[in-house]
Amino acid sequence: MSNHIGFTPTKRESVYHLFPYWYIACRSDELQKKPKQIQLWNTKLVLFRDSHQRAYALLDRCPHRNVPLSLGRVQKNNLECHYHGWQFNHLGECTKVPASIKGENHSRRVPSFPVVEKQGYVWVYTDPDSEPNHLPYTFAYMDDPNYVSIRFEYEFDATIFSVAENILDVPHTSFLHGGLFRSGTQNIINWQVKRYPDRVECEYKDEPRPSGLFGRLLSPSGGTVQHFDRFILPNIAQVDYGMGETGKIMTTSSLSPVRDHQTKMYTVATIRKSRLFGIFRPLLEPVVLKIIKQDAVVLQAQSANQREFQGEEYTFHSTDVLGPSISRLMREASKEARILYDSNYSVAQEFSGKIRT
Amino acid sequence: MSNHIGFTPTKRESVYHLFPYWYIACRSDELQKKPKQIQLWNTKLVLFRDSHQRAYALLDRCPHRNVPLSLGRVQKNNLECHYHGWQFNHLGECTKVPASIKGENHSRRVPSFPVVEKQGYVWVYTDPDSEPNHLPYTFAYMDDPNYVSIRFEYEFDATIFSVAENILDVPHTSFLHGGLFRSGTQNIINWQVKRYPDRVECEYKDEPRPSGLFGRLLSPSGGTVQHFDRFILPNIAQVDYGMGETGKIMTTSSLSPVRDHQTKMYTVATIRKSRLFGIFRPLLEPVVLKIIKQDAVVLQAQSANQREFQGEEYTFHSTDVLGPSISRLMREASKEARILYDSNYSVAQEFSGKIRT
Amino acid sequence: MSNHIGFTPTKRESVYHLFPYWYIACRSDELQKKPKQIQLWNTKLVLFRDSHQRAYALLDRCPHRNVPLSLGRVQKNNLECHYHGWQFNHLGECTKVPASIKGENHSRRVPSFPVVEKQGYVWVYTDPDSEPNHLPYTFAYMDDPNYVSIRFEYEFDATIFSVAENILDVPHTSFLHGGLFRSGTQNIINWQVKRYPDRVECEYKDEPRPSGLFGRLLSPSGGTVQHFDRFILPNIAQVDYGMGETGKIMTTSSLSPVRDHQTKMYTVATIRKSRLFGIFRPLLEPVVLKIIKQDAVVLQAQSANQREFQGEEYTFHSTDVLGPSISRLMREASKEARILYDSNYSVAQEFSGKIRT
Repeated sequence: MSNHIGFTPTKRESVYHLFPYWYIACRSDELQKKPKQIQLWNTKLVLFRDSHQRAYALLDRCPHRNVPLSLGRVQKNNLECHYHGWQFNHLGECTKVPASIKGENHSRRVPSFPVVEKQGYVWVYTDPDSEPNHLPYTFAYMDDPNYVSIRFEYEFDATIFSVAENILDVPHTSFLHGGLFRSGTQNIINWQVKRYPDRVECEYKDEPRPSGLFGRLLSPSGGTVQHFDRFILPNIAQVDYGMGETGKIMTTSSLSPVRDHQTKMYTVATIRKSRLFGIFRPLLEPVVLKIIKQDAVVLQAQSANQREFQGEEYTFHSTDVLGPSISRLMREASKEARILYDSNYSVAQEFSGKIRT
Repeated sequence: MSNHIGFTPTKRESVYHLFPYWYIACRSDELQKKPKQIQLWNTKLVLFRDSHQRAYALLDRCPHRNVPLSLGRVQKNNLECHYHGWQFNHLGECTKVPASIKGENHSRRVPSFPVVEKQGYVWVYTDPDSEPNHLPYTFAYMDDPNYVSIRFEYEFDATIFSVAENILDVPHTSFLHGGLFRSGTQNIINWQVKRYPDRVECEYKDEPRPSGLFGRLLSPSGGTVQHFDRFILPNIAQVDYGMGETGKIMTTSSLSPVRDHQTKMYTVATIRKSRLFGIFRPLLEPVVLKIIKQDAVVLQAQSANQREFQGEEYTFHSTDVLGPSISRLMREASKEARILYDSNYSVAQEFSGKIRT
Repeated sequence: MSNHIGFTPTKRESVYHLFPYWYIACRSDELQKKPKQIQLWNTKLVLFRDSHQRAYALLDRCPHRNVPLSLGRVQKNNLECHYHGWQFNHLGECTKVPASIKGENHSRRVPSFPVVEKQGYVWVYTDPDSEPNHLPYTFAYMDDPNYVSIRFEYEFDATIFSVAENILDVPHTSFLHGGLFRSGTQNIINWQVKRYPDRVECEYKDEPRPSGLFGRLLSPSGGTVQHFDRFILPNIAQVDYGMGETGKIMTTSSLSPVRDHQTKMYTVATIRKSRLFGIFRPLLEPVVLKIIKQDAVVLQAQSANQREFQGEEYTFHSTDVLGPSISRLMREASKEARILYDSNYSVAQEFSGKIRT
C-alpha cells in the first residue's frame, strides 16, 4: 500500500506483504445504510453506499480532526463526519463545510480506494486513488443453475500465508482432522505440481474415491476422482474435487488480510446438484465448522508462537507439496505487482512426487 | 519536564508537550490523610498533607527500591515508604532510615514538585525542585456573593489540544450537539480574534440572544449578548457569556494532561444569581453532562484513530476560528517557557471573519 | 541464553540477565503424561516424559510450522506435533514425518535443553544443546529422617534480583511485616558479611532468641541463636536459623526467572523434628503465606513502577546488608559464566556492621 497520499500504514509484522490487489472487504448484505468500518493490511477503511446503492471506500479518518468517518452517516451521495458535519464524496473530495459562509471547502482529500461489487461481495483495491489494471477474482459456477453455492466466513488469528497453506495442505488433514476428513487407511497418492506466474496447481492422481457421504455426494454413480488444489495470487485457495462426468465439489476461499496475524476467509462452496444433496445439506455446515475450528486452534497457537519468537521461521519438507510454491508466489508478489488471471500464461515449472495420506 | 534530576519521563506521543507550568492535580477535598497518586504528563506523583494540612507533591518512587511512596502513610510531616519505612520530608529529603543505628540517612532526594492550594484545588508545577516565576490561574467571581460557582470534572481520552479546542469550537456545537445547544435556525455571526503572547480571545458579535431557558437565565430583562471564547496558556479554556448590565454565565476549564491521550478537565461554571436560577439549577448538570458525553465519544474515537494512524494530522480551515491559534500557542509553549498572565501584554495580531451556526 | 541455534530470545527489560545455569522448571509431580509448557528467561519450553518417565525439555516451537509442541502428545519416546504429526526425540531430532513415503525426516533440530530431575524438581539448563559443567543445587537435609521438609511455591511479579533481596533483607521484616515476624522491641544486631566468588553469606551475631512459638520451635531447650542468610549464584536465597545443638529451621528458595518481571519461587522449608512441631505445623502455612503476600504486594508495585519509569534505579544504603553483594554477583554472572558450588573457594572479602531491627 502506497504511503504517498498522506497516511502512514502501521508497521507490519509478517514477511508476506502483498502489493496492491483486490480483497473482499465484506459481504454485500453486510453493507447497508450505515457506513461500515473494515480493516485491510492493518489499515482502517470506511465503506458506504450512495443513494444509488453504489459502494465506495475511503480511508477511515477525517482530514479535519482525524475522527473516524465511520461514526458519521450518508447524506445523499456524501459521507458526513460526525464531528463538524463536513461531507466527502466517493472520491474523498470535501463537498461541504456547514459552518462556512461562502461554501469554502477544503482541498485535502480523503484517500479513496477503488471498489467493485460482484457476486455478493464488496471488493476493495488496496492502493488508494489508483486505476487497477485488472478485476477482482470471479467465483466459478455461481450463476449456473446446476450448482448450489454456499457461502461462509471465518476469521483466523494467523497470517494470510498460514491460512492459505493450511487450506491447501493435505498431510495435516489425515492427522489433525483424523477420522473426520479422511479414513484411517493409509494411501499413497501421486501428485504433480504446475507453477504459473500467478498461480500454482497441484493435481492428486489415482486418489481413491472418498468413502462415505462425501464420496457418494461427489458422484452417486461412481467414476474416477479428479482432485486439484490451487493457490491463485494474491489470495485464492481452491480445493476442486470432480468425479465422473458431472460430479463437482469445489471450495474457493478468498483471504483478506485484516492485520498481519489476522485473516478473514470468505469461502464459496460450489456443489453439483444431485438427489443426495438434500440428505447431505444439513450435515455440511456442522462438519465444515468442526474442521475449521480444529485448524483455527492450531493456527492461533502458531501465530502466538511467531509473535513470541519474533518471526516466522519455517522449514519446508518434501511433503509440503504446495507450501513452498505459495510462499514463493507471495514473496514475489510482495516485491512487485503481478499481472493476475492472464489466460496466456503457460506453465513455468513442473514437478511431481508421492505422498502418504 | 526536566530530566536532570534522576528520572526518565516516559515517551510522549502527542506533539503538544508543554514546558513546566501549573496544573490542577486534584480537588482539595480529594486529598485527605492518605497519600494520593496522580499523573501529570505521563509521570506518577504522590500528593500528601503534613500535620498542618499543607499539601506537597513528590515523584511517586522511593529512591531506595523504587516502590511507589503512595503505598505508604504520613508520619507527622514526613511521607513514609511502605517497604522499609524510610521517611521523606516535603523537599524529598530522606529524614529517617529505621534500620540505621547512627541515623545515617541517604543523600539521594526524591524530586519535589512545587504545590499551591487555592480555591479548592491542589495545583502542581511540573518542574521539580524549581521556583516557579508565577502563580496558578485564578478563577474569577468565585468569592463574589452575587455569583454561584459550580465545579465539575471529566476525564477525556484525548490530547489536551483536542479537549481545549473542542471546548472553544463553535461549529461543532450546532452539528454534534444538534438541538441540545443551539436552535435549528441558521445564523451568520461575525467573529474577531485577538492574539496575545499568552492567550487568544475570540469575540462573537451580533449573536442573537440565546433562546429558551439559557437565554432567560443569562438575562431575564433582555439586552445585548456579549460572547467571548478564550484560550489562556497553558491550559485554560473559557466560554464567557454576558448580557445586559449584569447577566453572566462563564465556564472556565483548567485542563490537566494525565497522559498524552488522556486529559482531565476541571471546570468552574460561574453564574450571576437571579430569580430564575432556582428553576435552572436542577437542569444544569444533566444537560451539561449530556453535552460532555457527546464530545467525549467523538474525542475518544479521534484519539484512538490518531494512535492507529500514528500521529495527529490536522487540516485547519477558515471555520476553525480558534483552533490554529491554540495549536500555535501550545507549540510555542512546548518549545520555550512563556510568561503567563502578564497584564502588560498587548494584542499581537487581530483578524476577523464570519461563521454560520 | 545463546542464540546461535536458530531462535531469537525476546528482548529483556531487566539488567539482571544470567548466563546459562540450572533453574527449576516445575515440580516433578506437575509433569505427567501430558507435555507441559513452561517459561524461563522469557523463552517458552516444552517439558515431556518418555516411556521410562525420564524428563526432557525442548524449545516449544516445531521447526516445521512454528506450532507449540506442547499442544501435542508423547508417542513412545517422541514428542509429536499436533499439526502434521511430526515426531521429535529428546535430542530434538525429527524422527518421523507421517506423510513421507520414504521416511525422509528433516535435518533441522529443535533446540534441546539439558534436564536433571532430583529431589522432586525438574531442573532445566538454559543453554540448549550444551554440556553443563556442574549439577543443579542440592537442598540439604531433605533425606535426613530427623528433619521435615515442606515445599511451597509462589510466583512474584518482580525481577529475580528483587525477590532474592527481599527474601534476605532483614530491615523490611520489622517494618513491612510488623508484628507478624519480629516483636516491637528494638534490637541492635551485629552482622558480618563474607563474599565468595559464587555466593555471599551474612551472619547475624548476638541475635536474641526469637520470642513466641518460632523460638520455642527452633529450640525447646534454649541456647544461642545462629542466623545466617545466604545468596548463592545463580538463584538460591537461604535463611538459616540454628539454636543450640540441634535446633534448625532453614528455608531455601530457588528462584526461576519466568519473564524479566516475573519470578517463580520454589521454597523448601527444612525443620528439625521436635515434640513442638505438631503444634506448630498447622500454623506454618497460613503465617508464611501471609508474609509472602505482604511482600508480593510491595514487589508488584515496585515492578510496575520500574516499568513505568523505564528501569531499575536503586540506592544502596549501609542497612542493605546483602543487597549490594547480590546485585554485584548477579551482574558479574550475567557477563560471564561462574563456576558454582566450588568447595575450594575461600572468602574474597569480609566486612561487618550493625543494624537496628
